Amino acid sequence: MPEKNRQIRLAARPQGEPTADDFELVECEVPSCGSGQMLLRTIYLSLDPYMRGRMNAGESYAPPLEIGQVMEGGAVGEVVESKLRGFAAGDIVIAPLGWQEYAISDGSGVEKFDPKLGPISYGLGVLGMPGLTAYTGLLTIGQPRPAETLVVAAASGAVGSVVGQIARIKGCRVIGIAGGAEKCRFVKEELGFDDCLDHRAEGLEERLREVCPTGIDVYFENVGGAVFDAVLPLLNRFARIPVCGLIAHYNATGLPEGPDRLPLLMHAILSKRLAFRGFIVSDFADQTPQFRADVSGWLQEGRIKYREDITDGLENAPGELIGLLRGENFGKKIIRVGHDPTAHTAHTAHTAD
Amino acid sequence: MPEKNRQIRLAARPQGEPTADDFELVECEVPSCGSGQMLLRTIYLSLDPYMRGRMNAGESYAPPLEIGQVMEGGAVGEVVESKLRGFAAGDIVIAPLGWQEYAISDGSGVEKFDPKLGPISYGLGVLGMPGLTAYTGLLTIGQPRPAETLVVAAASGAVGSVVGQIARIKGCRVIGIAGGAEKCRFVKEELGFDDCLDHRAEGLEERLREVCPTGIDVYFENVGGAVFDAVLPLLNRFARIPVCGLIAHYNATGLPEGPDRLPLLMHAILSKRLAFRGFIVSDFADQTPQFRADVSGWLQEGRIKYREDITDGLENAPGELIGLLRGENFGKKIIRVGHDPTAHTAHTAHTAD
Repeated sequence: MPEKNRQIRLAARPQGEPTADDFELVECEVPSCGSGQMLLRTIYLSLDPYMRGRMNAGESYAPPLEIGQVMEGGAVGEVVESKLRGFAAGDIVIAPLGWQEYAISDGSGVEKFDPKLGPISYGLGVLGMPGLTAYTGLLTIGQPRPAETLVVAAASGAVGSVVGQIARIKGCRVIGIAGGAEKCRFVKEELGFDDCLDHRAEGLEERLREVCPTGIDVYFENVGGAVFDAVLPLLNRFARIPVCGLIAHYNATGLPEGPDRLPLLMHAILSKRLAFRGFIVSDFADQTPQFRADVSGWLQEGRIKYREDITDGLENAPGELIGLLRGENFGKKIIRVGHDPTAHTAHTAHTAD
Repeated sequence: MPEKNRQIRLAARPQGEPTADDFELVECEVPSCGSGQMLLRTIYLSLDPYMRGRMNAGESYAPPLEIGQVMEGGAVGEVVESKLRGFAAGDIVIAPLGWQEYAISDGSGVEKFDPKLGPISYGLGVLGMPGLTAYTGLLTIGQPRPAETLVVAAASGAVGSVVGQIARIKGCRVIGIAGGAEKCRFVKEELGFDDCLDHRAEGLEERLREVCPTGIDVYFENVGGAVFDAVLPLLNRFARIPVCGLIAHYNATGLPEGPDRLPLLMHAILSKRLAFRGFIVSDFADQTPQFRADVSGWLQEGRIKYREDITDGLENAPGELIGLLRGENFGKKIIRVGHDPTAHTAHTAHTAD
């Protein structure tokens, strides 16, 4: 049995962008496993934009973390020891392990992951929560139809890349938005989007207008900010806007200066008969089996490609989350916390390149 | 055959609230009726908030009126002479006659109205466009469920009164908002809403919070402005907001001062998984038969009550529209332009009081 556990805890509530001082790396005992429990070892930890919201005091769709609590996060883990029916040592699971090397679980929120579906880290991305977010938000709320134009930002990321590729499969013209020329090239050439714009270059609104000559029918909202501002005037009548994230706002400490554009947005909703709907992935958990079947099929057919951005070492998680919120990752951001026992299995049918 | 026609035309585009000078009363010849046409006589003209939008130059869901054009408006009319198959002299019709005593029509947008359904003026209200707006927006987008709380403003008006009464029939707790104690008393005592708040009194947000202790599940948006601001913090998770009008904004000449609350609204949509959807009544025209059947049934059972605010004389339409935009009407605003040949028919089953 392992003896030492390492954890990263919330040390302070960030003001704006988080800094290293907002996190604390702590070494402690590995907890022991009672009846009806199991001990899990973290292999891959997922970093996601929503984590920034949990660091705030205000209420969102989940209660905030308390100061001193272990940072929350989904992970792929291995069962080390089990006193819980249905789980055995060696099982690979997707579980809310948090930012730590070992955790005790009573099975809540834990799901076994079959390594035959693909690399086990995909359970945190295209075959996991971000993939389900993309699939359900796009198909249930976005309702893409052939020949419509869809726009999605963070297009090289875990959610955006899947949104755009599924929309292509459904017959849409798909425009991505990403940060930097390298990501844009990847989105266009590797993922097969019709075009991809660099939001860091000048004149986004004008360039977007040029590549959307017939307007925008579906905007999958996961960033907000300047991208939303460029999209809003181009939305067509009856456009659908699934609202899944607002990463551009997460570090904001207050509202921007005026004028107050809330009435402008309401007027657009009315005059163009727009449909905005917010969602989180758990709202559509019942679609998981259909999602897994569809997306693993599309992966195997090569119709969906997927890129990961993996960094080694739990101690690097704070810096990588800060980078993620700045858009510095390139692909689904993952921290490799421990050894992957399946890493030498061949998964050629599933890899992106 | 009549010889003189009177029309009210758009004389100037209003800056903010319209004034009498923005309208021009013109006397002209009664047009003659060619083959495939009919001559219609206006009996009742409907005044509605959307007319303010048509007076602006900017595009909305319909093209703007040009200066010098006859003001648009729905009306109940009588066929004077018909060279159009399917219509005969004496027929009562609902038609887009505009603000004038006589008009030529080729039948576009004209619908016969059966006087047996109720007073023919009801075809402009509870049994016409405002009623269909209330019915479709509430049931299709609002999706009210038993024991939920619904809020609607302009609650004594043509749309709001029907929204609230149908929501009551569907088992909701219904809170109205109206302007002045007399309207509030009517909404509560005559229409049977659970409560009604006067938006002219102080502390609307606080009073609304008191009467919605379990939050708001459906907000039927037809006013915007201060009412929306009071509603937004009280919206429950998964609340639905059909957006049908924004009368509080129609006279606005620019955006309000900051801060910019657009990100605040987007954050609420995301964190509470709200669904906002704009619509206009023609989007749901296919529901008209079901609407007519349901609402005329509820009228006859006394489960829906309806109040009109009728003013005589075409020349009074401009002043009455200005008053409507200020909320001075009490009930569905109608101008009686000409004699109602059905006025002595008994319709006791349909009248409000």
